[in-house]
Amino acid sequence: MTSKIQNPIPLPAIRRLPAYLRLLKAYKIEGETWVSATSLAQELRYKPIQVRKDMAWTGVEGKPKVGFNIDDLILAINYQLGWDNTTDAVLIGVGNLGRALDGYKGFGNYGLKTLSVHDTDPQKIGTKLDGLIIKPMDALEDSVKRFGIHIAILTTPTEYVQEIAERLVTAGITGIWNFAPGKLKLPADIVIQRTDLATGFAELSSKLKNQIIK
Amino acid sequence: MTSKIQNPIPLPAIRRLPAYLRLLKAYKIEGETWVSATSLAQELRYKPIQVRKDMAWTGVEGKPKVGFNIDDLILAINYQLGWDNTTDAVLIGVGNLGRALDGYKGFGNYGLKTLSVHDTDPQKIGTKLDGLIIKPMDALEDSVKRFGIHIAILTTPTEYVQEIAERLVTAGITGIWNFAPGKLKLPADIVIQRTDLATGFAELSSKLKNQIIK
Repeated sequence: MTSKIQNPIPLPAIRRLPAYLRLLKAYKIEGETWVSATSLAQELRYKPIQVRKDMAWTGVEGKPKVGFNIDDLILAINYQLGWDNTTDAVLIGVGNLGRALDGYKGFGNYGLKTLSVHDTDPQKIGTKLDGLIIKPMDALEDSVKRFGIHIAILTTPTEYVQEIAERLVTAGITGIWNFAPGKLKLPADIVIQRTDLATGFAELSSKLKNQIIK
Repeated sequence: MTSKIQNPIPLPAIRRLPAYLRLLKAYKIEGETWVSATSLAQELRYKPIQVRKDMAWTGVEGKPKVGFNIDDLILAINYQLGWDNTTDAVLIGVGNLGRALDGYKGFGNYGLKTLSVHDTDPQKIGTKLDGLIIKPMDALEDSVKRFGIHIAILTTPTEYVQEIAERLVTAGITGIWNFAPGKLKLPADIVIQRTDLATGFAELSSKLKNQIIK
């Protein structure tokens, strides 16, 4: 698939990537799997040699006769644009659960990186959680935008979750991991992952009950 | 089904309940759904009038001609014997996760009650968590037995989990809710519920990745 690029892509190439991305997604919707540099060049009115150079920057290699795999190109361009950032997160709510998640060892394989931490409590703001200074809620939008974060982890009390989630989406968050009970109302393209700690207990308790009448 | 009994059952009746339970489970295995007081009396060599009185203590009402529903009786007797205790729990590990679980509001509907809390840390032992004095690990077996607890919540570091789980099972625990990564090796009749906090993040991250190539 994609190999990670070592050298930074020149700015003019970066600026062309969103145009490629839009076109590639259109091809994909039409059911295409492969695309040639020539088609891309024709459609976007770029010179074929420039398209070939731009494709080289993405790290995706074309196959003779079929061209480039569209999914691979989409992933690679998203990666180059930093739009595929699905491991950096902002944590909102530094209670016991927030601290537990921050210190949880099990994330190793999934690459979760908490880059910014926010809370409402003036006693907590300014202190550190695992090396990160806990920031006030006012600084939420700024943190999300500055770090290009797409994932928010919400361990705040239920009553604030909807309002915070709306602010996060406006700031550019596309995935929300919500630990508060209740449903979030957000645009359909926002991925919401709800983890209800009580579910595990309910399952265990119910399995034990079933075992009793066995 | 069963209605909760207000008056305590007389001790002689309580002592007969395990015998009923064994027989009822045997009937169930043979595929029976209903049992009459007469059959129970014959099989156990009790007087029919005594069986009828004992059944009355369970709170399960018999149906004319078919008798008592076996599942209902098993549940009711387990309840009377305190063997159906699937909401009381012992918590082992008072770190951030342990505290988060203890304070989690979402358990309301499921009735989780933490009756005993244990940790290895001498700094924590003797202090209180939500009104309960944190006890040393030595006191684990005693707590489990004294409170008749069947559920243990394990938020200890992975390396200690197997050993603690074995001690718990010996003490009478039948269900373990394990938050530590890795698999527990325990007898087949022990219900193990594993909650891996990283799973939620992995799902969210993967959904976001899939959305990128859409």
